[in-house]
Amino acid sequence: MDYGLPLLQALIEHLRKLPGVGEKTARRLAFAILGMDEEEVKGFAETLLQVKRDIGFCNRCGSLAEGEFCSICRDRSRNESILCVVERPSDVFILESNGQFRGRYHVLHGVLSPLDGVGPDNLNIPQLEKRVLKEGIKEVIIATNPSVEGDTTSLYIARLLGKHGIKVTRPARGLPLGSSLEYVDSGTISKALEGREPI
Amino acid sequence: MDYGLPLLQALIEHLRKLPGVGEKTARRLAFAILGMDEEEVKGFAETLLQVKRDIGFCNRCGSLAEGEFCSICRDRSRNESILCVVERPSDVFILESNGQFRGRYHVLHGVLSPLDGVGPDNLNIPQLEKRVLKEGIKEVIIATNPSVEGDTTSLYIARLLGKHGIKVTRPARGLPLGSSLEYVDSGTISKALEGREPI
Repeated sequence: MDYGLPLLQALIEHLRKLPGVGEKTARRLAFAILGMDEEEVKGFAETLLQVKRDIGFCNRCGSLAEGEFCSICRDRSRNESILCVVERPSDVFILESNGQFRGRYHVLHGVLSPLDGVGPDNLNIPQLEKRVLKEGIKEVIIATNPSVEGDTTSLYIARLLGKHGIKVTRPARGLPLGSSLEYVDSGTISKALEGREPI
Repeated sequence: MDYGLPLLQALIEHLRKLPGVGEKTARRLAFAILGMDEEEVKGFAETLLQVKRDIGFCNRCGSLAEGEFCSICRDRSRNESILCVVERPSDVFILESNGQFRGRYHVLHGVLSPLDGVGPDNLNIPQLEKRVLKEGIKEVIIATNPSVEGDTTSLYIARLLGKHGIKVTRPARGLPLGSSLEYVDSGTISKALEGREPI
């Protein structure tokens, strides 16, 4: 709809490009921004520009970094012999918020998808092979998403690294905690039964 | 949590100030912004600044305007004898997207709330009284929200304008279309029964 306010309309269009934001939500957010004080909005706008200008990828693992290397690669207290391979930089933050994993990461920036023309060389995979050999990594956990593409990518990397005798693992698949059998899909139940554990 | 990325953290904090955006959503939006191309983010940031700098309130009705008067006050095809009073500028846009009302608006910028120290003079009410008399308005529809504060404000304005012999109305209360009696609250059912209509 036309608000008779081209600037407000432009703001709504920008907000609609965010994931999960439709026309109604964008309108609500735009009005909230109009109601904020000027300093806050200025800070928001400046942060947006800085983020795009100053955040890049870590030269070593491909995660987000404000300088040459990310904070995890710079942290000497991390276990240097174990790597966790993930699809996206955001996955690093999800695993870090869990806190259990104390090794380092390697971000693929995608998954293998031959139909879209995405092969190993379009991902951060050749670098992974070099890195594993150079850094003397003992174990690589491949934590790609449990989807068809994620599993394909995982299998490809497992074979590639397996040739060098590296131990390659992946997180267990099974029933998510707090769920109920009624709501878990059949594929997950199969995986959970196959991987059953003694009590 | 600490992302080791002060800029990303700052962006997440700004996003969290938006309504309905918690930590997880803010993180998701921040990563989406990181993934946008630079021109898009620049445009977004510039629009934010312009919106705060150039959008103000209409000198006549209190709605949003990019100049002295809003597009509705400037539109000569609108019915000049009927006013719709609303709480917030965003309400104008909700009613405009409906499209049925063809008169003009008057935005109160809040509701009466004695406990919070909000009296008639803190709202756009004195201006409403002057405007109604000066412009020879015939009917005022008070479309404040159907809440306790909205109804109190509505009653106050009705008495104020009633003294001048102005016709004051409000939108009907009753069952929302497409709802079911099972899910409608008891107060609404009472109103719907009181205001029953012949079929």
